[in-house]
Amino acid sequence: MPTLSVFMDVPLAHKLEGSLLKTYKQDDYPNKIFLAYRGTFPQPHGVQERFVCGLSAELSPGGPNQASGAPSVVFLTVCMTNEGHPWVSLVVQKTRLQISQDPSLNYEYLPTMGLKSFIQASLALLFGKHSQAIVENRVGGVHTVGDSGAFQLGIQFLRAWHKDARIVYIISSQKELHGLIFQDMGFTVYEYSVWDPKKLCMDPDILLNVVEQIPHGCVLVMGNIIDCKLTPSGWAKLMSMIKSKQIFPFFDIPCQGLYTSDLEEDTRILQYFVSQGFEFFCSQSLSKNFGIYDEGVGILAVVAVNNQQLLCVLSQLEGLAQALWLNPPNTGARIITSILCNPALLGEWKQSLKEVVENIMLTKEKVKEKLRLLGTPGSWGHITEQSGTHGYLGLNSQQVEYLVRKKHIYIPKNGQINFSCINANNINYITESINEAVLLTESSEMCLPKEKKP
Amino acid sequence: MPTLSVFMDVPLAHKLEGSLLKTYKQDDYPNKIFLAYRGTFPQPHGVQERFVCGLSAELSPGGPNQASGAPSVVFLTVCMTNEGHPWVSLVVQKTRLQISQDPSLNYEYLPTMGLKSFIQASLALLFGKHSQAIVENRVGGVHTVGDSGAFQLGIQFLRAWHKDARIVYIISSQKELHGLIFQDMGFTVYEYSVWDPKKLCMDPDILLNVVEQIPHGCVLVMGNIIDCKLTPSGWAKLMSMIKSKQIFPFFDIPCQGLYTSDLEEDTRILQYFVSQGFEFFCSQSLSKNFGIYDEGVGILAVVAVNNQQLLCVLSQLEGLAQALWLNPPNTGARIITSILCNPALLGEWKQSLKEVVENIMLTKEKVKEKLRLLGTPGSWGHITEQSGTHGYLGLNSQQVEYLVRKKHIYIPKNGQINFSCINANNINYITESINEAVLLTESSEMCLPKEKKP
Repeated sequence: MPTLSVFMDVPLAHKLEGSLLKTYKQDDYPNKIFLAYRGTFPQPHGVQERFVCGLSAELSPGGPNQASGAPSVVFLTVCMTNEGHPWVSLVVQKTRLQISQDPSLNYEYLPTMGLKSFIQASLALLFGKHSQAIVENRVGGVHTVGDSGAFQLGIQFLRAWHKDARIVYIISSQKELHGLIFQDMGFTVYEYSVWDPKKLCMDPDILLNVVEQIPHGCVLVMGNIIDCKLTPSGWAKLMSMIKSKQIFPFFDIPCQGLYTSDLEEDTRILQYFVSQGFEFFCSQSLSKNFGIYDEGVGILAVVAVNNQQLLCVLSQLEGLAQALWLNPPNTGARIITSILCNPALLGEWKQSLKEVVENIMLTKEKVKEKLRLLGTPGSWGHITEQSGTHGYLGLNSQQVEYLVRKKHIYIPKNGQINFSCINANNINYITESINEAVLLTESSEMCLPKEKKP
Repeated sequence: MPTLSVFMDVPLAHKLEGSLLKTYKQDDYPNKIFLAYRGTFPQPHGVQERFVCGLSAELSPGGPNQASGAPSVVFLTVCMTNEGHPWVSLVVQKTRLQISQDPSLNYEYLPTMGLKSFIQASLALLFGKHSQAIVENRVGGVHTVGDSGAFQLGIQFLRAWHKDARIVYIISSQKELHGLIFQDMGFTVYEYSVWDPKKLCMDPDILLNVVEQIPHGCVLVMGNIIDCKLTPSGWAKLMSMIKSKQIFPFFDIPCQGLYTSDLEEDTRILQYFVSQGFEFFCSQSLSKNFGIYDEGVGILAVVAVNNQQLLCVLSQLEGLAQALWLNPPNTGARIITSILCNPALLGEWKQSLKEVVENIMLTKEKVKEKLRLLGTPGSWGHITEQSGTHGYLGLNSQQVEYLVRKKHIYIPKNGQINFSCINANNINYITESINEAVLLTESSEMCLPKEKKP
């Protein structure tokens, strides 16, 4: 044995895994339900292994995806099917098969910047083929790895080259995931939310207020604010404040097409910023809208004020990516590029997005209708007024606590859930439980015993 | 336009791309040959794109891989076929196809630590199933991304938790690639080589000398030193110095099985260190020995002195990996695990390694024999005495310069080339050029004109 261990003083790391997931896992109740957002728990456990080792993997009697029905399996995908399995666009399966049969492909290293055709196709998807920034040759991208890669790369760049910015404001849904990366690199991280729990909507005034209050020169991480109905004058005010305060926007587009199923509509916010000549970063994930979570493929998009500056920024990012992974993996990018560059496959993919989004809207309608039929006090229109897979239930913290502790329905404190996890098997239990929670907490007599919070 | 651009002061980054590759690309000579090591030029360019966009990719008349014959295409794979194409183990193609047809697989996120079965299989491959460290439950690993991922992760850990070590010695072949990552994180980087250009062999005395001279407490990056014939007492001396100087070993095993085709033999050095109770890191790449360069899959293996310390180290690495990529990509790991866990597929893979290594040895024999037949002065036995795809030609700098400048054969300054790039089409030109270089520089009259070096 060496006389002195290098690892001697290394403590066990505090696990980032949300306490909600931890409590869920420890819960023995057979019909427990997990409805939280991926952002709140980056640690999947116990999933996937059953399927992997050996091609001869036995199919269980319950069918290929039987394990996903077992209560102990937590899927962390953004989008689930009605059967409770992670959604994969069918055209992805087909394309994967075709690629694996194509003798003309080689498996040589990709360049550090990644697959060029993939980056081009992704940028066109993000900004639109005829985007001003693309025409002016001042938008570029780096092929990134995993759900953290684009932020890791972008933040490393900002740390090195935007030294005045040491404060970042992050939209609350993304804080846990990306906030830590900013924090590790010396940024002070604040979160903001535009959800008004009283008015039960994404309030444009809250957004304008936030931007008015944040300091000059900071970084502003914005998600999709499609449900935050800014008026034209609201947009003008927002742009003008961001410009005059020299705030650097860092967009996060994790699932384009899964909000409204209209790909252009889902990134409208970027068009506004491009049209105003802003420079910014945008993390685009393509794992979720194609249903290939396990490939973790995306890009970090860069919009600069001109081509010359763009090339400088990209060259610096290349150096950083070289040290991070040297060459990004190919499979996910190859599948996506094949689909985006082939009109027939692209059409199939768009159709599959449409079906998914319609299905989620249907689920939301059903939840709303069931609550109406149950006579649950309150208005539930906000459920169907929100776009995308995730949305606020509009419950207060007492109600959320009741659902978690008494009904084994795991919902994050802010009440934002993944509606694609609700299906025919659990919708009655969920809506009845919500009704119960609301009725109990509505009663002024009702008071939860002061137990330790889970 | 914003009044002040954040990117205004960002300069164009200096490209790491080796000057050799740059010169090669600028060379118009139609039959130029590139024989350098991947480590010297991490930037492939102009490769791959032809094949990617669209599944309907046209096959050129010359056959599927025709482009690889074009002189402007540089493949950076470690191992080439006789036909000059990147080598892929056939069992990989078969497995890829089977996976893409398997309905039981899902595409859910992998845990941050990666695919558990893949890590287990990779560790067993690296250390042997019955390794003392595995039995004692003090070896673990993290599934890493790309050719830099394992070093990026390991170095981040050392920066945070091994604060006394700020000096690193790197074996010269890996210096360009990994040295920069150490440097970026504040380490002082020195390189060493164990090749004796006079004796034309890997000299164990040089290795012992290096370790004797390097300072207490530094990090030592070691590659495979299979050709460095240490005696039992040499091994004992090496171990004892590393132990007493508290040097932290960081092994780099980029292509297990491609040295001798004996998987165990190729990682024998690890067994020595395990048996002596050392703690160390090891970067294991599995892209090269399976021929799936574009998946960039590997692990960072950790050997600790006991299970408790191992768990602490792994928990810290998990936090770092979370910020780096959050979830590693699956495809490469899935293919490799399927092969390693299935005895029939494993047998096929081992057989394919055997064929590759035999083929390379045959190429080396042919080079040696052709030089003998040409009557090239000097002994060329060292060519066949070296294991693996790469080896020193044993030329001096004047001879290397002659080959590059006069014969358009691109060889790094140290004369270490990729023998798998030599095939029936170019072997005569290469050996005749070597002969010419040696004859000219042997003559005392010979002196290259003092031109600017390429």
